[in-house]
Amino acid sequence: MKFCSQCQAEITWKIPAGDNRHRFVCEPCDLIFYKNPRIVAGTLPVFENKILLCRRAIEPRRGFWTLPAGFMENGESTEQGALRETWEEAQAEVVLGPLYSVISVPHINQVHMFFLAKMNTAQFAAGDESLEVALFDPKDIPWNELAFPTIVETLERYIKEAQIITSGELNVTHVLDIPPHKAMNPAMLIPKVQPKD
Amino acid sequence: MKFCSQCQAEITWKIPAGDNRHRFVCEPCDLIFYKNPRIVAGTLPVFENKILLCRRAIEPRRGFWTLPAGFMENGESTEQGALRETWEEAQAEVVLGPLYSVISVPHINQVHMFFLAKMNTAQFAAGDESLEVALFDPKDIPWNELAFPTIVETLERYIKEAQIITSGELNVTHVLDIPPHKAMNPAMLIPKVQPKD
Repeated sequence: MKFCSQCQAEITWKIPAGDNRHRFVCEPCDLIFYKNPRIVAGTLPVFENKILLCRRAIEPRRGFWTLPAGFMENGESTEQGALRETWEEAQAEVVLGPLYSVISVPHINQVHMFFLAKMNTAQFAAGDESLEVALFDPKDIPWNELAFPTIVETLERYIKEAQIITSGELNVTHVLDIPPHKAMNPAMLIPKVQPKD
Repeated sequence: MKFCSQCQAEITWKIPAGDNRHRFVCEPCDLIFYKNPRIVAGTLPVFENKILLCRRAIEPRRGFWTLPAGFMENGESTEQGALRETWEEAQAEVVLGPLYSVISVPHINQVHMFFLAKMNTAQFAAGDESLEVALFDPKDIPWNELAFPTIVETLERYIKEAQIITSGELNVTHVLDIPPHKAMNPAMLIPKVQPKD
């Protein structure tokens, strides 16, 4: 960030009065431009014990498999964001279940949130950002071709717990973090290309 | 947003190719400036069945009571954000429990997340953003002097469930939304003043 988006003045990188962190500050406007983490909202859609995955048509990680998910937009709830992304990427209408995983990825300033979701029919199709969409039996998950660590973490837990989840005995939200060493390549962890501002 | 923060050119408000929403776009730079919801992370700290609340020293809602919470920062996890805010606002060191509520507030582009937290001692004090900090017996919660609807929603659920939570039988994350009509005044819902960029 070099210039103020309100007045074009040069931005100063400083700790504002009463703060304890460096911020982008426009001194003529007396404005602070905060930068905060973004939410990636998505679902883990299940039809008859099979899990719906999308093969990515866009970088990063083009060609790798992911759960339908993407950046939550202003004006929507986490649930609406998860449903919208599921429709956009997998053309699937799902019934939302509980929030299943909340995974912070601090080194790229993201929080990934996945809801369990039920598909009443096997209707789905590749959206613009997917090469293909398919249902996988848990034993056939393409572990070596998954796009992001947050997908691995969410699927591993779900597959281990699927039976008790189905029986209605488990209703737990997993909260965890992805440390930098778990990201083989930081670029991997950015689900959609969003230019820096 | 009027000018590009990279090149000072005038910003265009348009739907970029391949998108379906209006965005702030710098055409000379070929850059899109996305705006996404922010996370407010906090805790519900408990000491011997009493709940720790902070009376706000800053606008909005100066003088009203809140759970310790604030905007999650880049480079931290949701848990770290919740612990940091608990320290900054209530000078309390807590032990984090499960994620208890995830509340979308779409009309102000925020998602509030509260973790249950245990205090091992009754040590606390007012931080810079608090006028005072105090422990409340559930029957003495100042319902008419709470700062934000997300605090009301979280406390109502906790007080109803506290006994089963303590017995270890409940581990559920409540996911809900605050619709605009629940916000008596939209300004009420912004926990800290963050200028728009």
